[in-house]
Amino acid sequence: MLITKVIGNIGTEEEIAGKKTEWIELDWEELSKRILRKETDQGTDVAISLEHHDDDHDDHDDHDHDHDHEHHEHQTLQYGDLLFEDDSRRIAVRTKMEPVIVISPKNMTEMGKTAFELGNRHTPALIEENEVIVRADHTLNKLLDEVGVVYETTERRFKQPFKYRGHSH
Amino acid sequence: MLITKVIGNIGTEEEIAGKKTEWIELDWEELSKRILRKETDQGTDVAISLEHHDDDHDDHDDHDHDHDHEHHEHQTLQYGDLLFEDDSRRIAVRTKMEPVIVISPKNMTEMGKTAFELGNRHTPALIEENEVIVRADHTLNKLLDEVGVVYETTERRFKQPFKYRGHSH
Repeated sequence: MLITKVIGNIGTEEEIAGKKTEWIELDWEELSKRILRKETDQGTDVAISLEHHDDDHDDHDDHDHDHDHEHHEHQTLQYGDLLFEDDSRRIAVRTKMEPVIVISPKNMTEMGKTAFELGNRHTPALIEENEVIVRADHTLNKLLDEVGVVYETTERRFKQPFKYRGHSH
Repeated sequence: MLITKVIGNIGTEEEIAGKKTEWIELDWEELSKRILRKETDQGTDVAISLEHHDDDHDDHDDHDHDHDHEHHEHQTLQYGDLLFEDDSRRIAVRTKMEPVIVISPKNMTEMGKTAFELGNRHTPALIEENEVIVRADHTLNKLLDEVGVVYETTERRFKQPFKYRGHSH
């Protein structure tokens, strides 16, 4: 089937009795893609080609806090986005469980230094509440040790696409 | 005169009655230099050639919080560093008043996003307590607006050298 728009988000919902949910599992980077061809975990073939929305305003604030449809403006997918629904089933996307480093700065200064260094290395990072999540990469350990911040290597699903706001090279 | 080491720091001290303080005014970048030739505000010629200290451990933590001599390990100067003192005068360094943007993130997430974007642009930034200070640069305004953080353009003296901890290119 061809999907051209996201019709909702079930990332925080419980499973619905009597309605099957098929999941499309994406890599973190794939959340940023507008065109994808994937199979669900039930083998349904899905072609995603999201419609382009005008991005004529700069209302990017608080992007991480809302799971609503504001992200359409960015032409990106988010964890839990619902692509198809009928009486018997739903098709939604989620991200794969991946090895990550979860960094827990203990104050504003540590957060700033950690994020600055990650930005300086162009390391994709998800900054949410009091945590910074990056892909597991042992070359970051020395850097984080130098910053003096607490971190642990674990597994997580990335829930938001990574997006540089500013200039990148 | 030739100065090879910092003998103290008077950045937070009051002027001493009966003892003249001559100031060497430096640009922010010059705090990171080990070799400098400058005149004080009284016209005294000073050659600075700081001795090289072994940097055999990675104790860079809390660098911003101490005005003691730990910075010798970094071979950098800080605001208020005392270079010479006798009965009648002291010679010390301070930084010039410069146009800056003072950014005031209101929480950890804003701090992280701001610092990440500045790092991504390799914009020298001083992260202290709850503020981020960068040189005034109107091209940053759009970026900061997109992050949604509060900032003001004003004047400040940079009190610490800027130093990337990690890889830079």
